[in-house]
Formats: sequence, C-alpha cells, structure tokens
Amino acid sequence: MKKKITIAIDAMGGDNSPDKTIHGLKLFLDLNSKEDDFIINLFGDKDKINDILFKYKINQNKIKIFHTASVISDEETPLSAIKNSKNTSMWNCIKSQLDGHSDISLSAGNTGVLLVISRMILKMMEKVSKPALAGLWPNKDGMNVVLDLGANIDCDENNLVDFAELGSALYKSLYTNETPRVSLLNIGSEEIKGTDTLKKAFKKLEALDNQNNFYFKGYIEGNRIMSGETDVIITDGFTGNVALKTAEGTAKFITDNLKKTLNQNLLSKISILFSYFALKKFKEKLDPRKYNGAIFLGLNGPVVKSHGGIDALGFSHSINLCYKIIKGNLMSEIKKNLSQVRNEENI
Amino acid sequence: MKKKITIAIDAMGGDNSPDKTIHGLKLFLDLNSKEDDFIINLFGDKDKINDILFKYKINQNKIKIFHTASVISDEETPLSAIKNSKNTSMWNCIKSQLDGHSDISLSAGNTGVLLVISRMILKMMEKVSKPALAGLWPNKDGMNVVLDLGANIDCDENNLVDFAELGSALYKSLYTNETPRVSLLNIGSEEIKGTDTLKKAFKKLEALDNQNNFYFKGYIEGNRIMSGETDVIITDGFTGNVALKTAEGTAKFITDNLKKTLNQNLLSKISILFSYFALKKFKEKLDPRKYNGAIFLGLNGPVVKSHGGIDALGFSHSINLCYKIIKGNLMSEIKKNLSQVRNEENI
Repeated sequence: MKKKITIAIDAMGGDNSPDKTIHGLKLFLDLNSKEDDFIINLFGDKDKINDILFKYKINQNKIKIFHTASVISDEETPLSAIKNSKNTSMWNCIKSQLDGHSDISLSAGNTGVLLVISRMILKMMEKVSKPALAGLWPNKDGMNVVLDLGANIDCDENNLVDFAELGSALYKSLYTNETPRVSLLNIGSEEIKGTDTLKKAFKKLEALDNQNNFYFKGYIEGNRIMSGETDVIITDGFTGNVALKTAEGTAKFITDNLKKTLNQNLLSKISILFSYFALKKFKEKLDPRKYNGAIFLGLNGPVVKSHGGIDALGFSHSINLCYKIIKGNLMSEIKKNLSQVRNEENI
Repeated sequence: MKKKITIAIDAMGGDNSPDKTIHGLKLFLDLNSKEDDFIINLFGDKDKINDILFKYKINQNKIKIFHTASVISDEETPLSAIKNSKNTSMWNCIKSQLDGHSDISLSAGNTGVLLVISRMILKMMEKVSKPALAGLWPNKDGMNVVLDLGANIDCDENNLVDFAELGSALYKSLYTNETPRVSLLNIGSEEIKGTDTLKKAFKKLEALDNQNNFYFKGYIEGNRIMSGETDVIITDGFTGNVALKTAEGTAKFITDNLKKTLNQNLLSKISILFSYFALKKFKEKLDPRKYNGAIFLGLNGPVVKSHGGIDALGFSHSINLCYKIIKGNLMSEIKKNLSQVRNEENI
C-alpha cells in the first residue's frame, strides 16, 4: 500500500482558531470526500478540538489529534519565540515532520515565529543558500509562483538562482510536468537595467536555461507579472513583499470603487441584478482566499503559512495547497532540480 | 506686471508627435482659456508644428516656436545621447530653462536620455544628494506623491531624507499649503522591520518630524499606498518602479477581467446599459491619463516626463501638471525645505 499523505495542522494559530482551522478542515474534507490517500494530524488543545470537530459533525477516520497545551501568542517576536515556543502547537506541528509522522506543516500563526522555528527544527537543505517564501499569484492564464515574498531582505545572485530552482520545482509539483518558464523581476527588460546582483543572476540563469529544470525568459517588469507570459517570478524578499502588498492594495482600491460605483444610484443598482452572476464569477476569480497560503521552501520539509486573518474557506484552500504539493512530490522535484544545478557548477 | 509662467514643450518626443503633443496643447489651452498668466515655448520642426497648429485651429497668441531640426531617437541610449543630443528638440527645450526663457520643461521622449541630459544641462541643486523622479498616485481621498520611481537604483538614508524634502515641496506646490504627511515604504510597520538604510532614514526623518516641512508618519506597507493615510511616500528608485508598475499591471488585470465579465452574456450586457454612467465615472476616476507625468526633482529647474505612448488627452494633463507646479512655486518650496534641513544638520 502506498504511504498516505500526512498533513500536520497547527489548529490553534491565527484569528478565531481552533474554530476557523477546524471549520476549514471540514470544507477540505467535504471537497476531497472521495480521496482516501491522506491523513490530517491536528496539533492543539485536545478538548477544544474535539468540541469543534463535534460542532461541525466531522468524521474522525482521517484525523489524528496530538494534544499540546500551549500556543504561541501573536505578540511573540521571533527572538523571544526561540525560548518560548517549545512544545507549543506550532512547534510540535513542525516537529512531527522531523519525526517522519508528517509530510508538510500548515499554520495560520505568527509569520516571523513560524519562519524562525521552521528553520530551527527542519534545517536548511544541504544545497540551498537561503530558504524562501513562495506565493501563488493569479495571471491571465492561471497562476504564477512568485518568490521570495519576504523571508530574505538581502539576496545575492546565488540566492536568486536557488529561488529559480525551488520555484520551478514548486510549480511542477502543483500544476504540470512541463518545464516552467522563469523570469527575473526588474525595472526594465533590457539587459543593462537593474542592480549588479540582478545582472549577475541573469547571466547564471541564462547558463541554466533549457537544462531540464526551466526555461529562462529574462527580465520581467511589475506590469507584466499578471500577463501570463511566465510561470515563476524571482525576486528578493523586500521587493517581492512590496510588490505583493501593492497588488493587494490596488485590487482592494479598485473593487471598493467599483462597489461604490454600482451602488450609487437606482439605475446602477438595477444593473447589479442583471450582472449578478457575471459579477459573482468575477468576484470569485479575484477572491484572495483562493490564493491563501505562502510556501516556505528550502528546508528539509515544506511549511505552509496561511494568512492569520483569513476565514475558514481561505484556510481550507491552504490545506488543499498542502495536499496538492505533497501529491505532486515537491521535495523530490526540489532535490532533482538542485542536484542538477550543483552538477553544472562542478563542471 | 507679474512674470508669466513659461512652459517649454519638446513637441517632437513620444509616439505620434508632434501631432499628439500639439493636440494635447489644444486640449490644455481650451481647459485654461480664461487664464492669461502663461506662455508655451514649443521646440521642434517649425513647419511641422505650424501645420498641426493650423490643423487644430490653435490661436498662437500664447505660443512661441523655437525651430530645432533634429530629434532624439527612441533607440538612443543615455550614453550615446550625451554625444548626439545637442541641439535636438529635447536638448533645446531643457536648455531654455538655463537661459531663463522657461520655468519648466516637458517631454514625452526617451526617459533615460531625458534624465541624463536634464542633469547635464540643469545640474543638481547645491543641497541635494541625488535627484528623484516623483509621480502622482491616486488614493482614497485624492492623490499621493511617490518618489523615487526609477532615477536611482541605490539610495542611502540621506538620499531618502532629501526625497522627503523634495516630495513635500512638490505636494505643497500642487495641492495645499498644509504640512504634508510623509511615510517611508517598507515591508512592515514595526520599527525593527526593513533594511539598515530604511532604519537609519527612519531615525533621521523622525528627527525632522513636525519642523515645518512635514509630519513623519513612519513606515507604510504596499497595501496602504492608496489608503489616503499619507501624502508623500518615500522609497528607492528600484522599489518605487516595481511598485508603480505592479499597481499598473494589477489595475489592468482587474479592469480587463471586469470588461470580459460584463460582456459575457446577454443579461450582463443589458446591465451595462443601466450602469453606463456609473461605470463611466468609475473608468474616469481610474483613467491613467489623469496621472500622466513624472516630475524630475532636485535639479536647478523641474523637468516633467510624459509617458511616451500616452494620447493627446494624457499629454494635456502633463502640460496642466507643469502649469500647476510653477503656479504653486515648486522651486521656492524646495529651497525653503532644503535650507531648513541643512540648518538642522548644522546644529
């Protein structure tokens, strides 16, 4: 029998948890009711978890509960967390990967703490220079993977090359067996544009182009991120974080304005009746809950961070993301990619 | 009699010029037909310009034409332009500021070349460490000024402080006599977040808070750029350029999707009839032509760069921007701001 996919969930992290996390689990289980290839390990207060499993009438045949009494508070800094996080639900959740009980961890708790303790527990992969936080970003034809979204403020060209290998492995595990297209985020598409680090990374990525792992498509500008011309976008964590949040803010600004516009007079209100289903589809396509979950890559095991303030539906998308990642063999894709880069370097 | 505001326009720069630039001028003149306090200096091919002035039936009483036979090509690099740009329409346009014939220059030509030759001709102001490209960015309540949008890839804390002084002077000249609120773009709002340069700039800006020139509001994240909580946003040219283009791309992605949504079936098409005027207002509010024009600050005279591909209406907004900037006494606002910073530093 094939080993089952095991997803470890920090049931206590994020707003309104464990109600939110368990409700999200219910939605995930309903969606995948026909699948029999996974197990969920829940970490947190056993009594609270059981109460809520009962509340949502969840069948426990695919669930194991690991009782942990303490929880990491949202006020904890990464530094203080190193001392205080042992045996919390988040810690034990990630630790279960090290013990071989789980394939992937998911938490909606404090991001900084999650990054620090994931690194402490799982350690960096031997061939990786820095881990990175990758996210899914909608585009014209589907989805991009973008990384780093904030794990590393300063990145050199070797970090960026690693991100290309990690990001293409993630893309392959999620979407396709085809070779992904990789682009480097810059402020112009000409080769002379950008920082020295970007120019050096360009040269290295060019040398790796079409060597099985990815096609290198050169520089991409911010206005083309959603154009569908590439699959994986590489940037340092500062730029990636600013770009992601700017896109979120712009989307909110426009949709808020649209709502106000359509509610401003009787005629425009009537128009909503006619466009109800079309607008519903539009809203669904742009629903940020669908893209919830950033993937921490480059450690000896993947960790997914859900937005802390997201609701149960958003959290269920993160659980599904974990499921797809492991089903798509992320870790072996990463190892395959990295072994090839390093062989190239040894030539 | 008060000296008239004199705007120098490179009539030949950008796509479809001089038709586009002169048509834009026509729209500007119509908008300001009651004003008698400005003169337009047009630089370019005299015959072509005259033909198009005639085509658009433009009264020439507020216009002077300065014949220049050559034009900077779009293929010119900043480096080759240093040799080849003398006596082109762009060169003579900016040069007229040095000779005292014009207060401000406007061009829709090659950006890199414009930045280089503006700097060569006008020279940096004595108290400025680096010039910056500032743009207008819509927010919930009106407009932000954001800088740098791409003139400087690497910036230290003193450059960022200068940008705060330049940006607040621009904001004052354009919108208000009230003290503007300044924020520093970062990836978190806590003081510990961000690069060392940002932390140092934070300390310096904090010391300048509420000393007449601006209120310092601390860090701002990308998702709050359009929230209306600040007036001037400071960042290095790399980050600013990525943020601006990412916002443009996101806005295009959403409005394209909305268009597709509303045209997808008969019912939703009918809805457009009812919401026509509301949607028109929505479209107008987000029309990028309204924000056309980046202002190059920190030289001994302001230079405005219009988007090269913009149409006549967009170009007319840039001319109007030039007019408002000089009417609001930008250069003396800048001098006032800079003299105070430097006095602070001497204490």
